[in-house]
Amino acid sequence: MAQKPSIPKGTRDFSPVEMAKRNYIFNTIKEVYALYGFQQIETPAMENLSTLMGKYGEEGDKLLFKIQNSGDYFRGITDEQLLSRDAAKLASKFCEKGLRYDLTVPFARYVVQHREELALPFKRYQIQPVWRADRPQKGRYREFYQCDADVVGSSSLINEVELMQIVDTVFTRFGIRVCIKINNRKILSGIAEIIGQADKIVDITVAIDKLDKIGLDNVNAELAENGIPAEAIEKLQPIILLSGTNEEKLQTMKEVLKDSETGLKGVEECEFILSKLNGLNNEVEIDLTLARGLNYYTGAIFEVKALDVEIGSITGGGRYDNLTGIFGMPGLSGVGISFGADRIFDVLNQLDLYPKEAINTTKLLFVNFGEKEADFCLEVLKQVREAGISAEIYPESVKMKKQMSYANAKQIPFVALVGETEMQEQKVTLKNMESGDQSMLTISELIETLR
Amino acid sequence: MAQKPSIPKGTRDFSPVEMAKRNYIFNTIKEVYALYGFQQIETPAMENLSTLMGKYGEEGDKLLFKIQNSGDYFRGITDEQLLSRDAAKLASKFCEKGLRYDLTVPFARYVVQHREELALPFKRYQIQPVWRADRPQKGRYREFYQCDADVVGSSSLINEVELMQIVDTVFTRFGIRVCIKINNRKILSGIAEIIGQADKIVDITVAIDKLDKIGLDNVNAELAENGIPAEAIEKLQPIILLSGTNEEKLQTMKEVLKDSETGLKGVEECEFILSKLNGLNNEVEIDLTLARGLNYYTGAIFEVKALDVEIGSITGGGRYDNLTGIFGMPGLSGVGISFGADRIFDVLNQLDLYPKEAINTTKLLFVNFGEKEADFCLEVLKQVREAGISAEIYPESVKMKKQMSYANAKQIPFVALVGETEMQEQKVTLKNMESGDQSMLTISELIETLR
Repeated sequence: MAQKPSIPKGTRDFSPVEMAKRNYIFNTIKEVYALYGFQQIETPAMENLSTLMGKYGEEGDKLLFKIQNSGDYFRGITDEQLLSRDAAKLASKFCEKGLRYDLTVPFARYVVQHREELALPFKRYQIQPVWRADRPQKGRYREFYQCDADVVGSSSLINEVELMQIVDTVFTRFGIRVCIKINNRKILSGIAEIIGQADKIVDITVAIDKLDKIGLDNVNAELAENGIPAEAIEKLQPIILLSGTNEEKLQTMKEVLKDSETGLKGVEECEFILSKLNGLNNEVEIDLTLARGLNYYTGAIFEVKALDVEIGSITGGGRYDNLTGIFGMPGLSGVGISFGADRIFDVLNQLDLYPKEAINTTKLLFVNFGEKEADFCLEVLKQVREAGISAEIYPESVKMKKQMSYANAKQIPFVALVGETEMQEQKVTLKNMESGDQSMLTISELIETLR
Repeated sequence: MAQKPSIPKGTRDFSPVEMAKRNYIFNTIKEVYALYGFQQIETPAMENLSTLMGKYGEEGDKLLFKIQNSGDYFRGITDEQLLSRDAAKLASKFCEKGLRYDLTVPFARYVVQHREELALPFKRYQIQPVWRADRPQKGRYREFYQCDADVVGSSSLINEVELMQIVDTVFTRFGIRVCIKINNRKILSGIAEIIGQADKIVDITVAIDKLDKIGLDNVNAELAENGIPAEAIEKLQPIILLSGTNEEKLQTMKEVLKDSETGLKGVEECEFILSKLNGLNNEVEIDLTLARGLNYYTGAIFEVKALDVEIGSITGGGRYDNLTGIFGMPGLSGVGISFGADRIFDVLNQLDLYPKEAINTTKLLFVNFGEKEADFCLEVLKQVREAGISAEIYPESVKMKKQMSYANAKQIPFVALVGETEMQEQKVTLKNMESGDQSMLTISELIETLR
């Protein structure tokens, strides 16, 4: 046989079992999004490069998959340009389109393009693959799904509250215990403001994050190394050592940030959100080391950690104030979350949490003993399927052993056997593949048993 | 404001209402596929060009969207080659990957690549977008979804029977009246054989197809113009004039094809399939003018026409005997169907057949009268959502009119009003947006009413 065909590195095929698990994840998330009034949209896989370029930094531009123009893609390029072999510069001559890199920029483009049709606030969700020409490695793919929900056109903190409720509901349904961590960009700005080191936010959060590992002295030393003056480090001590309940943390921050209007606003926002979140199944914790998306988040920042599996954050999000500004429509505030489907897939696998119903597909296989028996089975099949039960007949009357191993491979839990006796009595012998039990049933008993 | 951003020609954004309709279509098809034991797989959007090239003819190769190699895509190309500007030839140097053009070739690649894991017969379905650099026009897009189901590794005609049952069930669920047309490649080969004109199959079917429009004499004249000898045209007369019930057609064909083993095999296959199809809701009709996919179908050929809308075929399929041969794994027979989601979308729109539940999303909007009222509503919302009802609160306490027009724009059928009285009595005033009726209800009455 010729060499096996393969797929591009960093991409994946999804087998029936993997698809069943993925559908379980996506359907759970979709259902909860819908319960909160979010509506689904889809955008094309290809966007104009002018929409995508410059939105993800210089590195991001390089990671865009670009699509070669159809027809004569050399058109408009001089010999001199060709011979310059300037790959980065000529890319936009050879290519006008690229594959979407995330769902956020296409969403911003969508909002601006369709603004006349939209009723604001617009609550949309979107579950589609994105593509990045990253170096593939364990857990990092060149094609992967994102599951985003965003509200644009409303700055009310009720949106933040509801997004946290969504997170809590989704992970409760999955049976994954999580800690929901929240922070606020305004608090971080406030901290930088009071110590007079606006550009050092990231250094500070990175250093604080190491407290458990390296101890206070080393954290302070690291801050000093990063050029933060002794006086500022002094002021930072209550922040570095911040602990206790969320209420205690808020109290400490109010003290430290008392001279920063922005900082106090951030504390107030945190306080509001937390005050509305009673009755969640999972813990919510203020964590000042959360510094994701600092270049675009302007308010709340969220991150979700699984408690029982060692893995990075499995969901994240936050508020951004100028999503559509890049496309010439300023002043629209938005807030969103994104579930990390691939990591959730791994967590559910490791904790073995997939409900059996979600994975089993065919419930009943009719063994095929020959044309006469198959005719009888086809009639029964019709009734079984009308009752909503997934069922099939082995299409050929081959050896029993082969048919049973098909049932096993497909993890079909029940097998129906039909011979002379069954046909005469208008019955079916049902075999439970797990217990091995067999019993002869009427068609309505069969349907009752399987339902 | 800057110029509105746009999307590449031939691609589409799908709005919430369009997505709800599309999900209704896809979910209906998925459910029926699953009922028959088909399992979903997904393959990457990008395939290696070596997998795709040469599979769709020369024209098809040109219509593949090719993805520029990351990094220095000039690597390995000489100056001379560059200056030759041979776009077609250099495409495979600039690009190693392309977007999938259909779901059939990726499926064949999947079967060969994963053959050790698969239990044959393998019944898979796949619903994913495909991309073609075709000239966009009304109803033809550069990105569109295909919804395929195939069985490979079984030559039993029970598969054909079940696929027809799937077609019948799907369109019954949609409420679209259809005619399922069937033909068989072996019958067409048999006809060509007995008149000694193996290469004229397409000309013959095209001419026969015109019978109603141009009459027998003109059909015969056209056949003669296409170089078919008078004697052969004479033999063709019963085929051209084929009419009556399926039984009568089969009878006539048996006579005409009595000297062609292949032809008689085709008639026998048709007969078998029809004999197992009693009890369908839609009509099945033998139609010898069906000649789709003649270059790869080897047995049954199907096509579905909507009866109440003027539109091309909305579903099609057939049997092919060597799907995986192109990847070095010969001898696997397969049979499949493909639902045309875009055309079904149009038909359902034209006949206004979407069930209301499928389109409505949020069922209840809580009007926001201020923080105290909102707090009360958030508590009620929690219970309403726990009961599985999609509901939301307008996030800001703006003017009533604005909130009501949001409800109207989103076609939310019920609105909840909560003021002092309601809070005191732990009730909610429910307004039916269609009738205008209002009534004050307890929380459990509210849930009962909406469920």
